[in-house]
Amino acid sequence: MSFLFVVNLKLMSTYADRYFPDEPTGPKVVTETIPGPKGKEVIKSLSDVFDTRCVFFPTDYEKSYGNYIVDADNNVLLDTYCQVASIGLGYNNPNLIKVAKSDKMIRALTDRPALSNFPGLDYEEMQRDILKYAPKGQKYVWNGLSGADANELALKAVFFNYQSTKRGYDSPFTEEEERSCMENLPPGNPELAVLSFKRAFHGRLFATASLTRSKPLHKMDMPSFHWPTGEFPAYKYPLEENEDQNKKEDARCLAIVEDRFKNWHCPIAALIIEPIQSEGGDNHADAAFFQGLRDITLKYGAKLIIDEVQTGCGGTGIMWDHERYNITPPPDLVTFSKKMQSSGYFFHDPELIPNLPYRQFNTWSGDPKNILMCGAIMKEINEKGLLPSLRETGLYFYGKLEELQNEYPKLISNLRGKGKGCFMAFDISSPEKRAKFLAEMRINGVNIGDCGSLGVRLRPGLTFNKKHVDVFIPIMKTVLSSL
Amino acid sequence: MSFLFVVNLKLMSTYADRYFPDEPTGPKVVTETIPGPKGKEVIKSLSDVFDTRCVFFPTDYEKSYGNYIVDADNNVLLDTYCQVASIGLGYNNPNLIKVAKSDKMIRALTDRPALSNFPGLDYEEMQRDILKYAPKGQKYVWNGLSGADANELALKAVFFNYQSTKRGYDSPFTEEEERSCMENLPPGNPELAVLSFKRAFHGRLFATASLTRSKPLHKMDMPSFHWPTGEFPAYKYPLEENEDQNKKEDARCLAIVEDRFKNWHCPIAALIIEPIQSEGGDNHADAAFFQGLRDITLKYGAKLIIDEVQTGCGGTGIMWDHERYNITPPPDLVTFSKKMQSSGYFFHDPELIPNLPYRQFNTWSGDPKNILMCGAIMKEINEKGLLPSLRETGLYFYGKLEELQNEYPKLISNLRGKGKGCFMAFDISSPEKRAKFLAEMRINGVNIGDCGSLGVRLRPGLTFNKKHVDVFIPIMKTVLSSL
Repeated sequence: MSFLFVVNLKLMSTYADRYFPDEPTGPKVVTETIPGPKGKEVIKSLSDVFDTRCVFFPTDYEKSYGNYIVDADNNVLLDTYCQVASIGLGYNNPNLIKVAKSDKMIRALTDRPALSNFPGLDYEEMQRDILKYAPKGQKYVWNGLSGADANELALKAVFFNYQSTKRGYDSPFTEEEERSCMENLPPGNPELAVLSFKRAFHGRLFATASLTRSKPLHKMDMPSFHWPTGEFPAYKYPLEENEDQNKKEDARCLAIVEDRFKNWHCPIAALIIEPIQSEGGDNHADAAFFQGLRDITLKYGAKLIIDEVQTGCGGTGIMWDHERYNITPPPDLVTFSKKMQSSGYFFHDPELIPNLPYRQFNTWSGDPKNILMCGAIMKEINEKGLLPSLRETGLYFYGKLEELQNEYPKLISNLRGKGKGCFMAFDISSPEKRAKFLAEMRINGVNIGDCGSLGVRLRPGLTFNKKHVDVFIPIMKTVLSSL
Repeated sequence: MSFLFVVNLKLMSTYADRYFPDEPTGPKVVTETIPGPKGKEVIKSLSDVFDTRCVFFPTDYEKSYGNYIVDADNNVLLDTYCQVASIGLGYNNPNLIKVAKSDKMIRALTDRPALSNFPGLDYEEMQRDILKYAPKGQKYVWNGLSGADANELALKAVFFNYQSTKRGYDSPFTEEEERSCMENLPPGNPELAVLSFKRAFHGRLFATASLTRSKPLHKMDMPSFHWPTGEFPAYKYPLEENEDQNKKEDARCLAIVEDRFKNWHCPIAALIIEPIQSEGGDNHADAAFFQGLRDITLKYGAKLIIDEVQTGCGGTGIMWDHERYNITPPPDLVTFSKKMQSSGYFFHDPELIPNLPYRQFNTWSGDPKNILMCGAIMKEINEKGLLPSLRETGLYFYGKLEELQNEYPKLISNLRGKGKGCFMAFDISSPEKRAKFLAEMRINGVNIGDCGSLGVRLRPGLTFNKKHVDVFIPIMKTVLSSL
């Protein structure tokens, strides 16, 4: 009897109930502004040594817990932004604290290895822990240090492969190639392009800044590669009422992409795309569009890179968002970061491993601390069944937001992300109203982020459930009624 | 009395004696090859999930201790390579283990923040801990994730500053700039260059690969920026006997650099240089050369970036190697990584902070785990007086190596790095002999690395002292006599 009781309790209670038993029942704002007086003091002092112009509020990580983030003034906020979609399992997750205290972690911290030269004896297990939950069809993983880094490493793999295929995988470099690349000139440094999309975000290093197209601010004043742009579909919502028009939009965008492949002044070696354009406004596309892109890459001998930096690791209710589109054959490379706490790319074709050692290399070749944490996070998500629960929460959340959209049609539109966990967004009628909305949400107890020119994006952790929705919705209602 | 006794003991004993009391007295090789049978097994299994072509040997970090690294077969090797010059304070350093176990670290691991948006309350202290030991004249620090990342971020700061200065620091972007940068075209993405040197190494991302010139392998097949090369002096050794010729070499190289600034097809916004070209062969230059470069940058309105990724943080007997040249005014930016365990750049001009927020930004903006470790390492080096002791060891080591060079003049030449801690190198007569030398050193108990086409580089930790030299020298003597 008692055994059954325990099992039932486990089935009934959510992850948050089980592992964050002392989570607040709601936000608590004790200052008139956020940041409050203490927070402002911290910022003032910090700004002597750090650029604080992007600070939302200084954060007390000791007190932050579960789905609630606590600021320097002891304001307790429901967190639906989660460190730009990077905290998947709640603050001070007890199961991750165990990993943080493990001997393996302590060694990774004190003896940070040059992984490619001197891998530790526990390293194979760390890699296998990550590969266990890799996207379908992906057999290998390569480690990086951030989302931008992962994308740049993926580009390197693609360019190496493109030229090696032309040259013959095992053929040596020619003397002319060796000489010319030392001067940053072709043929050693060939002119090759990668296609990305309008409003895309892939990072802010030099090659990735050439791919990013969400805002001029991210690109301005940097020397860049002259790489082509495709158009990402701009769907009409609700989707059910606009099927025909959205189909035409797919066709229009695919035609533009194919035109780039046909007419660009140099070969396009790869196409990179996010399953949902996140920073650029939470723009969604459908299976037909993704399959159309895959077909174009196959037709023109280019690789398909899926950037799952923001979407990956469960936030949309499945581990890898692109899998819902059943792209056939699967993408060539899939990049990840953020919620994974580590970064890198998955791939399946061994010929994407460079033909020679030390071509894809840096001293650290990743960071075992983050790789260890990454494996633990993926295991936790899958073994504790967080995804089915998140999908359920997402549908519930969507329904509630839809009600608000119906109630405030002049303020809110384009609610999107149905069936994709809590990875949802909506637009607010103007940039000014949006700024006010975000500020009011915060002062009413919800930490929340924006995207694109009008979007509000929801990026709660995977531990977010109905009780948190029931905290969020009344606050949003209050805020909307005041706008 | 007992107090004095303790003090004396502390003065007498080395850091290694104090903190690694159980360090082996010498290497112990128990297999016929390195890696041995167990190591080979580990590699074979690991190669299913990882590119193992660069593996020296799988490493047992649990058993590695102080200046000794232990492989999978229980071979105990004196480590003079130290994870490509990245482990400064020995393996399993008890003082760093304390930091690894601290509450701050556990929070940094479980609640990895988006630093620029939600800095923790302990973050200012972490930044100040690093700034305390910054190069002279450097007031700010910006965090990155690797040496290459640090250099790319420094380049961004330079390009932003260059264009902002032209435009007016507070002037808005023009509409044409905003439109053109979204297409990766000027004027929004201007053509600007950075000068680096032959045999330089600055990383392997796309902008940094355009700067790196040590080997075609690092650059091949990547689209690149057409940036100019300067010549780095190739001195004759011993320096005392070749002063006149080396002075002429300085003048020749400076003239080439100035010619590039005068005649390059686009403005050169910065010059980047390592105090000692490390990966490229341990090539040294003198104060006159560095001052000459500084003068050229001032004359042409360019920034001087010093890449201290490999030299920085004490390895050459002083915290920042470029300081020995008393460059006036000090460099504009100084990048770091490796021994710091963290990465980033120092700078002194507040106008190198971009005019707008979010221009220099990524989700993580560094990694507090590594920043915390970095501060602890710098404090340990300075408070425990490791540098004076390293300088003494270096001179002793140099003297012993000089004796060997005199004894084997046909095998060894160009011993260099005198007075620069243990950051020394020498050349072996041919690539084949060098390969044999390195392999024999390893099987005789010394882990050691190479650089350039003929160089052997010594990169022991700052905990290396005379007793370790006395282990190293007889082994090297045995190996040389067998070549």
